[in-house]
Amino acid sequence: MSILSIDLGGTRLRAALYDEYFQQIARTETLTRADEGPKPVIERVLATAREVVPTGVNPRAIGMSTPGPLDARRGVVLHSFALPGWKDVPLTSIVSAAFGNAPTFAQNDGNVGPLAEYVLGAGQGCNPMLYLTISTGIGGGVIINGELFTGWSGHAAEPGHMQFHDEDGSVRRLEELASGTALGVLATRKLASYGGETRLRGLDVIDGKAVGTAAAAGDAFALSIVETAGRYLGLGLVNLLHLFSPQAVVVGGSVTQLGDLYFAPARAVIAERVLDPTFVPPNFIRMAHFGGDVCLIGAALHAQRESERV
Amino acid sequence: MSILSIDLGGTRLRAALYDEYFQQIARTETLTRADEGPKPVIERVLATAREVVPTGVNPRAIGMSTPGPLDARRGVVLHSFALPGWKDVPLTSIVSAAFGNAPTFAQNDGNVGPLAEYVLGAGQGCNPMLYLTISTGIGGGVIINGELFTGWSGHAAEPGHMQFHDEDGSVRRLEELASGTALGVLATRKLASYGGETRLRGLDVIDGKAVGTAAAAGDAFALSIVETAGRYLGLGLVNLLHLFSPQAVVVGGSVTQLGDLYFAPARAVIAERVLDPTFVPPNFIRMAHFGGDVCLIGAALHAQRESERV
Repeated sequence: MSILSIDLGGTRLRAALYDEYFQQIARTETLTRADEGPKPVIERVLATAREVVPTGVNPRAIGMSTPGPLDARRGVVLHSFALPGWKDVPLTSIVSAAFGNAPTFAQNDGNVGPLAEYVLGAGQGCNPMLYLTISTGIGGGVIINGELFTGWSGHAAEPGHMQFHDEDGSVRRLEELASGTALGVLATRKLASYGGETRLRGLDVIDGKAVGTAAAAGDAFALSIVETAGRYLGLGLVNLLHLFSPQAVVVGGSVTQLGDLYFAPARAVIAERVLDPTFVPPNFIRMAHFGGDVCLIGAALHAQRESERV
Repeated sequence: MSILSIDLGGTRLRAALYDEYFQQIARTETLTRADEGPKPVIERVLATAREVVPTGVNPRAIGMSTPGPLDARRGVVLHSFALPGWKDVPLTSIVSAAFGNAPTFAQNDGNVGPLAEYVLGAGQGCNPMLYLTISTGIGGGVIINGELFTGWSGHAAEPGHMQFHDEDGSVRRLEELASGTALGVLATRKLASYGGETRLRGLDVIDGKAVGTAAAAGDAFALSIVETAGRYLGLGLVNLLHLFSPQAVVVGGSVTQLGDLYFAPARAVIAERVLDPTFVPPNFIRMAHFGGDVCLIGAALHAQRESERV
């Protein structure tokens, strides 16, 4: 009664075997080496998965987490920024065939994460529940009435792709304004015109990690950058509140480690701009329960549910 | 087996009686005169409703459409920009008591409209279906799996309250950028710095209607204003596509009469900025089927469904 779960990310490839109570029986991890193109990566997916499945055993179901866009109904990776060269790859058919035709279900990483947090994590029972993963980019998804909400196309929700004019009048995506990448870009752009002292000056590369480290050490310039990004996140959350009226937003990803340096400005914007305070539930922003295994457990839960639907 | 429906708007008060096939048996309409305050308006609601209900008959159920915010679960109008002086008014209890304690269900006007278009109008069977009413402001709602989606607070969705920085760097709501009111405000603001000829110059009041009339007559300045508003609508639709991935957006309200002058720029922004073309279904933007009676029929449908749930 085991479920095989495979998390195919742009950087890391993970596989795990879960029992019927979603306890992890085995787990392994390697580098995806996505730059080698689809064929070697698919072979690596199968080899990695075989490491956690005992010889002679076929899993009852297989769940896969992949970078989007994905045709989840057919299990086909349409194309992917994170997987160069992939086009219309029938991933679930390939994996299913390698494990005794076990029913195999793929879903975007942004959609299995919320399922993990809803069923077993920080957003248990919340309806609707939003999930945001804020690191290099901003991904996420929505659970409505306990089900992944993916809309007509099967590609919703993409909260990182909400678009705004920024303060300079350009239209940008939320993930260009509030992600870890955005912290680095914003700091680099504003540093030239900043007259004061900052430990970021003179660094070869100013990335989100450098800005976060400096901000945590009290660097005024870095703090102002984190605050700006946090305020943009707040504006995104105002829109999500007005559109989905969620009971909780579960946030994960490296940027969330900045804590109140990042979330206090977001909360301030929400308080300033929400249509009505009844839109904002108590304990609205919650830190994610799962770390790096969120997509493994989420894909296993997704496979469990979908296989029972068949 | 009749259903009484009451549409309490900030300007107009309508009542109608529907048979079991949602055919209109009787209908009446008067002015709300909201400035007189809650007590006279509530008396007017009851008197207007009695005009369509035969003496001695009690409707099987009563549906009400009201301006928000509303506690739909308890049928209480919390407060309302459109109904001055209203605070925590137990509207459904009052109306129910006046008609033999018939089960009575109130819902925001922005939420019953989409139900009418989903069940009997331009968005039949679309999942999800979005509805936008674009006139003085921008209201609307979402149908998911055939049900009104109102979120945790019961107040979702408020698409007119999506917020953006505008081109000048101020944060504004979508309805401040793309509604009929916005057309007038934008034209007034830009006219001073416009050097060319325009029939809007010299008008005492430049409102949305004046801008629309001038644009329809080919006035270049007015056309540029309508285009700007249409592009903001497009940006709002991009965000709604990325978040809800609807199968159709049904649009109603006076501004939609501008047709392609307004929607062509919106479609252009969608084509420019959508993450993936698979997010945009064929025949995506649809003109609403119902006009002024959309809330009457929607509130009747809502009451029918809710009364069967009890």
